[in-house]
Order: sequence, then C-alpha cells, then structure tokens
Amino acid sequence: MLEHMPSSRNGDDAAVLPVLAPNSRTVVSTDTLVEGRHFRLDWSTPYDVGVKAITQNFADIEAMGARPIAALLAISAPGTTELSVLTELARGVGDSVERYSAQTVGGDLCSADSIIIGVTAIGVIGGSMSALTLDGARPGQRLVAAGRIGYSAAGLALLNYFGPDELPLGFDALIDAHCAPTIPIGRGVVARATGATAMTDNSDGLVHDLNTMAERSGVYIDLSRQAIAPDALMIAAGRAVGTDPWEWVLHGGEDHTLLACINKSTPSGFRTIGKILSTQNNQQAQTHAHSRITLDSQPVQPHGWDSFA
Amino acid sequence: MLEHMPSSRNGDDAAVLPVLAPNSRTVVSTDTLVEGRHFRLDWSTPYDVGVKAITQNFADIEAMGARPIAALLAISAPGTTELSVLTELARGVGDSVERYSAQTVGGDLCSADSIIIGVTAIGVIGGSMSALTLDGARPGQRLVAAGRIGYSAAGLALLNYFGPDELPLGFDALIDAHCAPTIPIGRGVVARATGATAMTDNSDGLVHDLNTMAERSGVYIDLSRQAIAPDALMIAAGRAVGTDPWEWVLHGGEDHTLLACINKSTPSGFRTIGKILSTQNNQQAQTHAHSRITLDSQPVQPHGWDSFA
Repeated sequence: MLEHMPSSRNGDDAAVLPVLAPNSRTVVSTDTLVEGRHFRLDWSTPYDVGVKAITQNFADIEAMGARPIAALLAISAPGTTELSVLTELARGVGDSVERYSAQTVGGDLCSADSIIIGVTAIGVIGGSMSALTLDGARPGQRLVAAGRIGYSAAGLALLNYFGPDELPLGFDALIDAHCAPTIPIGRGVVARATGATAMTDNSDGLVHDLNTMAERSGVYIDLSRQAIAPDALMIAAGRAVGTDPWEWVLHGGEDHTLLACINKSTPSGFRTIGKILSTQNNQQAQTHAHSRITLDSQPVQPHGWDSFA
Repeated sequence: MLEHMPSSRNGDDAAVLPVLAPNSRTVVSTDTLVEGRHFRLDWSTPYDVGVKAITQNFADIEAMGARPIAALLAISAPGTTELSVLTELARGVGDSVERYSAQTVGGDLCSADSIIIGVTAIGVIGGSMSALTLDGARPGQRLVAAGRIGYSAAGLALLNYFGPDELPLGFDALIDAHCAPTIPIGRGVVARATGATAMTDNSDGLVHDLNTMAERSGVYIDLSRQAIAPDALMIAAGRAVGTDPWEWVLHGGEDHTLLACINKSTPSGFRTIGKILSTQNNQQAQTHAHSRITLDSQPVQPHGWDSFA
C-alpha cells in the first residue's frame, strides 16, 4: 500500500511534519469508519471508502477554518481480506489526500474481526485570529453553506430501497454523495479569512448540527426554506422511494457541508441559507425546548443521524 | 469519559493545539490495539489497556527524540460493552497522558464487533537538529538503552503458562511490564539533546528492531551479552515456565525500550548495551544474510514478534 503513501515521512517510528509559519497552530481530529455501520462493501468500492474516510476527516479540519496537511491511516481487517481491498482503500485515501495537496504520513495495519478504518487528520491554521469553533455564532449574522445538503441521505435511501444492482438510472450524483462524498476544497480557510466567526460541518444532520452550534453559541437560527429546498434530482429520488426529500435536507447526515456564521457578505463558494437570531422568532417554537432551529420561522426538531446500523 | 479528557480543546470539530516555539516541528504516529490480539481483558484491566495504548504510542514519539504533547483516542466497541470498561480504559489513557504533561485532545467512540483502540500520538521537536530516525546509526557509535528489555515477553509467558488466577507470587514487575507497560519519560529528548543520531523503540523484539535500524543505516550492531543478560527475576520466570529467558531478551516485543546510537558518553538514564560496526565482526555471521546483529560477536537471527494472536 506504500505506493499510495509516497511521503518520505513514512517508515520511521513517527513522522516529522514540516516547520510551520510563525504563529501557526496545528489542528487535529480523528474519526473511525466501521464496515457494516459506516460503509458496506456491496454498496461502495474500497476506493470509495477511502475517499469517504478522508472527506469525513478533512471536513472536520476545514470546519475549524484550517487547511488539512496530513493524514494518518489505521486499518484493522480480517486476515482473509483480499489484498486488493486494502490497496484500493489506500488508493482512495491517497488520491483524496493528494487533492488537498496533503500527505499520508503514517499508518498501521492490523488484524481484526471486521474492517475498521481510523483516520487522523492534521491541519494547520495561521495567524492570530481564532479558529472557527461552535460557540462563535452571533445574532445578526448570516448562515452560509458550501456543499450539497441532503444528497448523501438521498443516495443512502436509494441504495436501501433498490439495492446496488437495481438502482434506477440518473441518480449517480446522489449515490456518489453517499459512497464517495467530496466537499469543495479550501472553503474553510476562505470562510475564516473573510470574517466567519463560527463553523461546523454537516455530519449528523443539518438541524442536529446547527442546533449544537446554536446551543453552544446561545443563539437561534432561522433557515430559509427557499435556500435549502430539495432540487429536482432529490425530488425525483423522493418519489422513487416514497420519502419526503425534506427529511434528507433537514436530517440527513454525512454531507460534510461547511456551515459558517458571518457578519459580512457571503464568502466565495458559499451561499446564504439562513440567519442567526438572538431569540426564537416564533412564539410557538419556544415551547419546543429542544430546538433552537426554525425553518421560515416554523420550529424544526433535531433528530440524530445513524448511517444504516 | 470526558472527565478523563479534561482538555478544553475537546468538543469541537477538531482540536487546535498551542502555537509551538519557532522552528519546532510536529511529530505524529498512530497505532491500534485489538482485543484478543494486543490485549485480553481477562489478563489486563481496562485501565491497564489504556496505559499500554499510551505507552506504545508515546514511545514512538520519544523514539524520534520528540516530546509527546497530545493524544487522540478512537475506541470501537460492541454495544454490549459495559460502560465501566470504557471509562476505566479512558482513565488509564488520561492518567498516562497526564504523566507526560500531555493532553487528550480528541476522540471518537463507535460500535464494532470487538474492542479496538486507536491512538494517535502527537509530539513536538524543537530546534534545527534532525529527528532521530532509523537511518542515522554510524560505525564507531555506542548503542544505548533506556528501559527494561524482555520484561514484557516474560510477563506474557507467565500469563500464558499459568493463566491470570494461578500466577506464582513475586512476578508482578514482569506481569505489569506486559499488561501496563511504562517507559522512563523524556529520555527521547535527552538522547537527542546529548548527541544521539538514531533511535527506535523495542516494539517487535530487540534483534528485529535493531536489525531494521542496522539495515536502514547500512551498519552492523554487536550486542554485549553481559549488558543485556536476563536478571534474576527473568531467570526465575524462565525456570517457572521452562523457557530460556534469553529468548525474551532477544526476541520479546512490546518493551518499548528506547534504543539510541551515540558517539559521546552514555546519556543520563541510558546504559550502554552494544556498539555499531561498519562490517560484520564475525566471518561465520556473514553467511547469515538476514542478520546484521551479533551478540558478543556471535550471529543472532531476528524473528518477528506476534503478541498472542
């Protein structure tokens, strides 16, 4: 697999990263993908899984306003796993890491009962401005987003309904969004550079993740129905599987869309999807103690996202 | 588990580490422990496993001449796992990390078929001197070691032979070395500061790991029989289980002893256990193509270390 990890930083006890610019800080995050829970190899190719593992982890780095520079990959797999599964997985990781101009600087391969992929992402954030944490949203700001919302959940619903071999034509963008998601690269740094004060990525559902940010920041968020409405492809998928596509938009996870709060104009690559409020803008909504999120002033309850386990 | 990870750097998409001193570099490594392969919960307490996970990973950072500053912990476990197992594991991790004055800055908990612990260790190395890689050993240097050699394998042999409930008295130091190993803290930085040019830790067996270093550096290493001879406790354990304790010294893994090559006098906390040579010092040894290691000029073949899987 080393051919997909061409860094000279590999192969010693640990990898030494480059000297950073003065005042830079390192940003780190770790995440695990478990076969049967976060991916299925009858639905996704091993290459896809590698792509997903990096997107999921690098999105967490981007969501701090940082730039991903390195990944470490720990694969546990049964001894009976075909070597091609591991090399394809590593190739997906390697290609994704390369798209970020980052490096895979280390790894570990060991035997276990199922395939478990652990990725640690390392990023760098420069200058003295704060990283974009969950507690930095302020009333009066606009909520902006970079990336698709609901596509991953729509793809998952199609796979669940039709299985991988009977999928109707035309839904590739949704399937890919679930099996091998990618996000626009470098938008996290852009958001921070243009004045965003809070950011997260949509991993567990739009309302769920925004509600966490709203709670941490002590604010309320009103989403624009028109700005996040399902597109024609999602509406068609909704018809095909008999689901309201708004469910995917509001509660689908794993899009890894960047969601930022900013006072100024919408940063390049983002679109405005809502606004940050100091109080709930709907009397009725205040009785929904658990939600700080409204959609065109109507309350929306968060509920968690569980892949397919 | 968060009480054992008291860092304020937790809880956002990613953790932001402090600004480093000028010219410092970040050093990273990742390693996985699988239940039934790297640890057994009928032999080790969950707390022990947490200690072992950190020692194993921080030793890789120390082996570069760096100082561990942070750990990320990814636990996969069956849904039926008792909560106390996870909290005790996290407590073992937290206590170990604290002994290094480091921080646990992130984590991930997800469900899987068995308990798998992934640790990513992050360290820092200052100044412009090189990190201590495997390829820096030079003929004429002395080989120095900090930490026990063979203790972990002796403990494992005792557990294998007697089981956890019938262990003869007096071997606690060996059992602990296997179940909850620790290494002298900070010796890696000392070795680099006092002029060592190569270092590794003994994870897969003394001869195996030294042979890797010798190959990478293009040198040969002669170990001193007297310097690494099994002590009285290991000899007693060898008698108890009917094994030559030299097997544990030469081929036992998981001691995480630091092994450094240095021109100058032996650094504080280290002892001299051999010397680096430019050619094999034994004609007979040259026929052993796979080994660059001798013991008092007698050839020793490396062979790998597999916990108990």
